[in-house]
Amino acid sequence: MTPSAAPALRRNAVEPALGELHALLGDRLSTAQAVRDHHGTDVSYHTPYPPDAVAFAQSTEEVAAIVKICARHGLPVIPYGTGTSLEGQIGAVQGGVCIDLGQMNRVVRVNPEDMDVTVEAGVTRKQLNAHIRDTGLFFPIDPGADASLGGMAATRASGTNAVRYGTMRENVLSLTVVLADGRIIRTARRARKSAAGYDLTRLFVGSEGTLGVITEVTLRLQGIPEAISSAVCAFATIEGAVNTVIQTIQAGVPVARIELLDEVQIDAVNKYAKLDYQVAPTLFFEFHGTERGVVEQAETVEALAQDNGAGEFHWATKPEDRSKLWQARHDAYFAALALKPGCKGWATDVCVPISRLAECIVETKKDLAASFVPAALVGHVGDGNFHLVYLIDPNKPAEINEAARLNERMVLRAIAMDGTCTGEHGVGWGKMEFLQAEHGEALSVMRQLKIALDPDGIMNPGKIVRV
Amino acid sequence: MTPSAAPALRRNAVEPALGELHALLGDRLSTAQAVRDHHGTDVSYHTPYPPDAVAFAQSTEEVAAIVKICARHGLPVIPYGTGTSLEGQIGAVQGGVCIDLGQMNRVVRVNPEDMDVTVEAGVTRKQLNAHIRDTGLFFPIDPGADASLGGMAATRASGTNAVRYGTMRENVLSLTVVLADGRIIRTARRARKSAAGYDLTRLFVGSEGTLGVITEVTLRLQGIPEAISSAVCAFATIEGAVNTVIQTIQAGVPVARIELLDEVQIDAVNKYAKLDYQVAPTLFFEFHGTERGVVEQAETVEALAQDNGAGEFHWATKPEDRSKLWQARHDAYFAALALKPGCKGWATDVCVPISRLAECIVETKKDLAASFVPAALVGHVGDGNFHLVYLIDPNKPAEINEAARLNERMVLRAIAMDGTCTGEHGVGWGKMEFLQAEHGEALSVMRQLKIALDPDGIMNPGKIVRV
Repeated sequence: MTPSAAPALRRNAVEPALGELHALLGDRLSTAQAVRDHHGTDVSYHTPYPPDAVAFAQSTEEVAAIVKICARHGLPVIPYGTGTSLEGQIGAVQGGVCIDLGQMNRVVRVNPEDMDVTVEAGVTRKQLNAHIRDTGLFFPIDPGADASLGGMAATRASGTNAVRYGTMRENVLSLTVVLADGRIIRTARRARKSAAGYDLTRLFVGSEGTLGVITEVTLRLQGIPEAISSAVCAFATIEGAVNTVIQTIQAGVPVARIELLDEVQIDAVNKYAKLDYQVAPTLFFEFHGTERGVVEQAETVEALAQDNGAGEFHWATKPEDRSKLWQARHDAYFAALALKPGCKGWATDVCVPISRLAECIVETKKDLAASFVPAALVGHVGDGNFHLVYLIDPNKPAEINEAARLNERMVLRAIAMDGTCTGEHGVGWGKMEFLQAEHGEALSVMRQLKIALDPDGIMNPGKIVRV
Repeated sequence: MTPSAAPALRRNAVEPALGELHALLGDRLSTAQAVRDHHGTDVSYHTPYPPDAVAFAQSTEEVAAIVKICARHGLPVIPYGTGTSLEGQIGAVQGGVCIDLGQMNRVVRVNPEDMDVTVEAGVTRKQLNAHIRDTGLFFPIDPGADASLGGMAATRASGTNAVRYGTMRENVLSLTVVLADGRIIRTARRARKSAAGYDLTRLFVGSEGTLGVITEVTLRLQGIPEAISSAVCAFATIEGAVNTVIQTIQAGVPVARIELLDEVQIDAVNKYAKLDYQVAPTLFFEFHGTERGVVEQAETVEALAQDNGAGEFHWATKPEDRSKLWQARHDAYFAALALKPGCKGWATDVCVPISRLAECIVETKKDLAASFVPAALVGHVGDGNFHLVYLIDPNKPAEINEAARLNERMVLRAIAMDGTCTGEHGVGWGKMEFLQAEHGEALSVMRQLKIALDPDGIMNPGKIVRV
């Protein structure tokens, strides 16, 4: 699809708005082509859309001042964290001002007793974990990139630990948000639960900048477990691997990570990192708990896996062995790209009820087997969520069209199984066209919410809902 | 406070609307005084407000038809589950039609592999657990009453298990909702996670019928643990008990329940059930896990408790002993009422960051010690949430005023500690006046959402937000 173009009206507003913004920000407003290009380009295959200018904000109040200027001139506002989104979320498809929150990178307050932390939106997940290392706590959510926590909240990110610790939906306690008219709100207090009114926190988590700009995030933290162990195990079939996952979760094993790599992906990882894993559907496990608890979890899962056609378990309990094991998983994306030198990766994901996961994966792989576009599969299978990366040459329309066809078939298959068009990558403009099929009449409610909170349509327009 | 009165306009709409509803529902529309009185009265101390009529709906489509008739006539719609709310949520403060969902009590579909279930809104939590008993699964959320699951979603209920399993916020996967104009939406698919647009599920969870009528609920289920053990332990001080809770959670012990009863409440329970617990601040624990895991959890917690001035642990592992132990906790409300024969209970709750919990409880108990209105305290302390029940004679304004004064002090204290005016009872009209102090500018956003989705103000008007 192609995003809708900027209304002509807005183009005339650019110059006067930039004048006011320059007066406010001085050289923290940039219109340099390289800066604009950088801020219109995410890590996806999507066409970049550079903004008219980039504003480097340093405080919530400054973000509010920027938004007020843009609102007065009807100019779009696009929030930017680390630029690592995957569905075109940061593209200035109607022009406007990109607000880069990277300089808002202070850890505001750590509350070890409450196991929570408040950070500015530009703090990244790795920065946070380095900052709190000595508290015995950690923040578990780990999308592939070292994304900003504001961006992770905005896209409802998750990652490999979500099966145990939840996604950003479950781990954000409160947000500070600048609204389309410059009002500043805090969406909730720091209490662990509340029944006091509408859940504004969850409304803004996943709203991708279309309802407001997230400037501060209060997050739950977790205790670093006493013991961690990891394992890798190959299976004769994808079904055997997925059934092991289903039975593990039904048995109440609090598995921390349970990741699937298909045989294409394992082959890619082997070649990329000079490893020698068996080329077969493979599960990567991680267990968190007490010393005894971790052993018990591992024994339970190993027994289930044997019943489902598993090969030998390769265990890693020492930190350096675990790191090596998980490096293979983390390298998956770049390993896949290396299968086709010079290609770009079109990353996509869907999520289905876990009872349909094996079927969804098997049917999707049938499509891939019959296609000339190669693709590798990895999955956060404990959540019913899996990813494909199509390896395409973006200069060859035939490859793009074929990837689009494969993607549409996979998404509609997932929706038909009562699943979703994206488990964790978000909508941006890349998946807007699927929301009607997924949500039906509920999409009209999303549109009502968008119009209510952003009547002039300046907040990251052209994403999630069409108005 | 007193709720705002019905606009005169609406009174004229009653007769014609009831005529149409009668044609639709026949004798499932009742205007009998006893039926109306019953449906305007919850289990709280709040003044009852009977509706003009009660409609007993049997399907989502029928609810939609009822709402459309009411919308055409501008008549309020108040959803009703079991009538067990605590802040006046079901009172027809501006008149209108109560939709009783009690006949919508079918379990629509159990998906054991996905560990989820879809029920009609009128199914109660105990009915659900009886229905799924043979699947090895259970639904953990347990407010005091055997409430309907639609009502529990609408009020964002929780209970004693929330510290382990979360509240309705975390356990609702999807809702079917009838909107103010009769549109029917499903808020999400059945996938465990999704990044596909605004989180409508969480918007309606906790909205107390003010944005729409919930008619179906899809819920997460949990595996029945292999082993369960319970314990009771008295402490020298409230601080010792609360510090034990904080340290338990920081240590990563996945405690399933951790409940505090103060010495007043223990004394009441002793008298009510002829028990002989030591009259002191007391924690009730429950551990879920494997046989070995439960022992390990218990050992960890017992060691922490000893360091915090605990007395002897009384263990219960056999089901009948556990039931007896928890019966004492479940009897708390009626035991408290029995302290003052003929009184009514004014139940209230707040929730604070757990680091402030001891201080909040101690200061609140100082207020109580200096007051002539008796009150007993119980708490879901793992969440930072505690309840008071003021024992009042509702015919004595001095007692009501005193309870209101104590309640206001406690609520404002909790808010000043970055807590919330209600952890799980909800707002209704009983706590509306505190939302400005809690949410500030964010309350204006809630108002915008209310106006966007219910422009004519017919959905349970006079609750949560003033328009």
